[in-house]
This record gives sequence, C-alpha cells and structure tokens, in this order.
Amino acid sequence: MAEQFRVRDPEFERRIRASFAHQGFMALIGAEIVSVHPGACHVRLPWRDTLSQQHGFFHGGVIGTIADVAGGYAAFSLMAAADSILTVEYKLNLMAPGRGQALNARGQVVRAGLTLTVSRADVFAERDGEEVLIASMQQTLMRLSDRAGLPAGR
Amino acid sequence: MAEQFRVRDPEFERRIRASFAHQGFMALIGAEIVSVHPGACHVRLPWRDTLSQQHGFFHGGVIGTIADVAGGYAAFSLMAAADSILTVEYKLNLMAPGRGQALNARGQVVRAGLTLTVSRADVFAERDGEEVLIASMQQTLMRLSDRAGLPAGR
Amino acid sequence: MAEQFRVRDPEFERRIRASFAHQGFMALIGAEIVSVHPGACHVRLPWRDTLSQQHGFFHGGVIGTIADVAGGYAAFSLMAAADSILTVEYKLNLMAPGRGQALNARGQVVRAGLTLTVSRADVFAERDGEEVLIASMQQTLMRLSDRAGLPAGR
Amino acid sequence: MAEQFRVRDPEFERRIRASFAHQGFMALIGAEIVSVHPGACHVRLPWRDTLSQQHGFFHGGVIGTIADVAGGYAAFSLMAAADSILTVEYKLNLMAPGRGQALNARGQVVRAGLTLTVSRADVFAERDGEEVLIASMQQTLMRLSDRAGLPAGR
Repeated sequence: MAEQFRVRDPEFERRIRASFAHQGFMALIGAEIVSVHPGACHVRLPWRDTLSQQHGFFHGGVIGTIADVAGGYAAFSLMAAADSILTVEYKLNLMAPGRGQALNARGQVVRAGLTLTVSRADVFAERDGEEVLIASMQQTLMRLSDRAGLPAGR
Repeated sequence: MAEQFRVRDPEFERRIRASFAHQGFMALIGAEIVSVHPGACHVRLPWRDTLSQQHGFFHGGVIGTIADVAGGYAAFSLMAAADSILTVEYKLNLMAPGRGQALNARGQVVRAGLTLTVSRADVFAERDGEEVLIASMQQTLMRLSDRAGLPAGR
Repeated sequence: MAEQFRVRDPEFERRIRASFAHQGFMALIGAEIVSVHPGACHVRLPWRDTLSQQHGFFHGGVIGTIADVAGGYAAFSLMAAADSILTVEYKLNLMAPGRGQALNARGQVVRAGLTLTVSRADVFAERDGEEVLIASMQQTLMRLSDRAGLPAGR
Repeated sequence: MAEQFRVRDPEFERRIRASFAHQGFMALIGAEIVSVHPGACHVRLPWRDTLSQQHGFFHGGVIGTIADVAGGYAAFSLMAAADSILTVEYKLNLMAPGRGQALNARGQVVRAGLTLTVSRADVFAERDGEEVLIASMQQTLMRLSDRAGLPAGR
C-alpha cells in the first residue's frame, strides 16, 4: 500500500479546504479537517449532545458521514484542479460504540484510477487520551472532469 | 420477497417511536418516522439548508443516516420487547443527486435470522410531487437479547 | 422499482449468451443462463461435489460468482451493441447455508446510469422443490463504450 | 492497525490447513495456502484456462473466492479449537484486470470481536515477477462456538 501517488494540482489542500467550507452539513455537526496529504485526509469531530443516538454515543450516521468525507477528500487530493468528485458507494463496518470525546476519521487512497478511485477510512474514538478503532470503511469515488465544484459528500 | 414476518412484540411501533425520540441526531437533522410495519419502516426528512453539501443538495452523510435508520427500525420491528439492535455494517450506493424538497427512506427486511437480520433501504427525493430514487442500501443488523435500550443508529 | 428500462440493442440476449459461452469459469462450475430480459438475468447452477465447502454445501465463492454474473448480465442487457461492461464492486450477504440440488441467481437492475449501473441479485437454493433465499447482493457496474467483448464476470 | 492478536488455539495452522483440504472447490480451482499467522492468511492461485472470463483473465468470481477464503482464515486463526466460522458478508472492489501468472490474496483481521470479526483482504496479480494490486475486500465473519467443522467459504 506504499503506492506513490501523483499530484496533479499542487494547490490541492487549498481546494479541499474551500470545498469543505461550503458544506453546510460539516458546520452543522462541527467537523474539521486536521490535515490533507496526497492520497490522505484526516477529519476530526468533537462530541456534541446533538450528535447522539440514544445511549449518548456518536450516532452511526455521523460516523459514516466523516468516514465518507475523509475517504472522499483523500481521493480528491489526487485530482486535477478542474475535476470534481462523486461518492459512488461506500461500505462501513461499525465495530465498537462511538463513545469518546471526539472522532478521528483517517482516509487513505487504495488505488487511483482514471475514472474511479478506491479509498479506505478508519474511524477512531478518543477516549481519555487513547484512540480506539470503532469503524472501517471501503469506498468507490468517481472523477468528473472539467466541472467546477465538489460534491464530495455525495 | 413476500416473506411473512413473525411479530414478537405487538407494541413494536410504540417501542420504535420511543427509541427514535431519544436520538439527538434525528432531532438535529429533522427526520421523522412516517410509518412502521412488521419488517418495514419509512423515514422522511424535509430539506434544511444546514443539511447541504456544497451544491446545495442533501449531503451524502444525511442520505446514509436515514437509510441506516429506516433499515435498522425495519429490523427492530421484528424483535422482542427486551431486545436491542446494532448496525453491524451497511453498504450504500448513491445514484443521483440528493436534490428535492424532502427525502424518503423506505427500509425493508430481507431476512430476519436469530442473531443477524439483513435489510435493504431505498431513498427517494421528492421533486415537485414526484419521487426519484437516489440511493440504495444493503445492511446487516445484530440482535442483542435482554438488553434495554436501542442503539439503532449504530 | 417498476422502472421501464430502455433497450439499446434488441439483440441483447444473443450477445449475452455469446459472452457467457466464452467464460471458461462458467463451464468449469456448470452454470447456465436460464433467461434474460431487459434489466434482468437468471443464472442456474446444479450441484456438483467439486463446488463444495467442507460441509458439502455450495461454496460461498460459487454463490458470489453466480450473483455477480446474474447482476452483471442484467446490467449488460441494457447496453448498446458496442459496449462492454466491468464489475466495479459488489457486496454479498450470505444468509443461509448453500444447501440444495441447485442454485438460482436472479439479477435485477436498480438504476441504469450513463456510466454506472447498480444491480441487485438474490440467490435461492432449490431444496426438494422449494426455493430458499440464501444470499443477497448489491453491485456497481461500469459501461465501457465502443469496446468489443464483455468481461462481465469482472 | 498494529493490534496484537490473542491466539486461543496454538494449533490454529493445522486446523486451518485441515479445513482448507476439505473444501472441494479449493481443489477444483487449484488454490493453496501459502502461510497462516495470527490474524493473517495468504492464499495463492496459479493461472489455469478454466478460471477465465472471456478475455482470458482470472474471473471475478475466482478473485472474490480467494479474497473471501484468505480473510475468513485470517479470522479463524484467532478462534478457539471448538469454534467454527461463517462469512456473514463481504464487499469486493475489482480495480484492475485479473491478468497474470497467479493471484495472491492476503487476508488480515481488522478487529476480532467476541461474536463478529472484521477482516480485509487485498488480491495481487503476479505479472512477470511483479505484483499488481487488483482487488480489495472488506468482510464480516461470525464465530459459532462449540461446533465442529469450518464453513469458512461461507
């Protein structure tokens, strides 16, 4: 998996942060981009009561959302400036309760093809200074050439 | 698929609506349960600006959330009063933009096993009185016996 | 799901049967196409001892294979004569033992897009004249325009 | 992911090789276990004409089969002597043609729970001394306690 990725747009981080800032849903839940590297993206989400399922843990829909976004921007980091990106599909395993002070979703490109990219993301819960793996995702993304904007959450 | 499902708890609808009411994240996004039947659940979500990705459509994370919830409660409708339920995993295809006045997620049990249940859910966008299929999900859920509470979103 | 599908090549059945006949692996396991309709394909596989896992049931790999093929040809039935098709990914739930005299995989298109098609397939085991649902699949396929040949199993 | 796995049965390799030897389908396709370690399994499959789709490459069903088996035995390596295992579901991305002299499927446990285990497997094609990543899988497996035998392929 130590594939060397080709960067087509050196401004990829600026482009991704601008895209992220336009997603109303990221503001609603309070997610933030920690870092972006070629083929990788780290999204963090601190706890809020409004993100709960009924046991007071992070809701599965929230976990899926930040996994999708982290994997999607990991893929988007390798695309050209004029490209946009769609999530074709993803598969998420929820392996432990979403309990903790914050979630960290780390997305990583597995293979970047001409049209389709496959990413994986793992989601970790922060519990008193430790990180616990709570969810793993595998995802397919599609590059759309020469379109402005990024529907990364979709 | 015209399987006849066995209902273990005739109070399943009351139980599901109580569980739903305890999920803070459902209130945050504004989702509501339209109907519950044995092996089926319909969740509706009206548009709000805060649910957007950057093209002003419903965010993929929102679509995945209500698909997960609709499929999960479809499964939960067939469980006993003392059971709780976990989403083990789901796979979601996003097939068209989440554009419309509201989303409708219709979950349906495919097979209810002793421990594991498989559900499917389709998500439709309301566009000027018509419904357009925008996403399809397939999901695995796990029954936990004799535990109070329902982490259906997880 | 009562979508009316558009047929681009009226010769689709002949094209699909020719493609199927070129797959060495279909001959090895003994699968056959029962029927093809616009957006649908039915594949049948009689029992052979060589298809077993160690309890003497159909191997999960065999079940996945015919589900993939049935869903793939369902999608291929809607494509133009010069198109070829790839399986991008699929997700398969194995819900009951693959025990019986034969397997029947019924593939069905959920949505046929310009580039990507989503199919589902259900696999049933024949047990003494009855059919039992043993597996369900959801799949993404990609149309390649103007290429000869069909790598439907891939 | 450098989780340290607990081994419950020091005889796990013998148990896995015996299980593998009882799968008729593994003999039919010619697959072999290269190695087994706690939480990991490597399966290799040399090319045969009978494994083809119609372009003369490895059939997708064959690729899925060895990915499922490698991930399943990776999980089984951590189980107790009296346990058996079922594949609950898996999701496979096919990312490049199955072209080469042999396939290598490397399965790895992501998280081993009490009842459910999540594995991943990557499949590589040998092409003139090099290995090319062609497929990636994510999988859910279920432990059945106190049952003899291993339906690992299912």
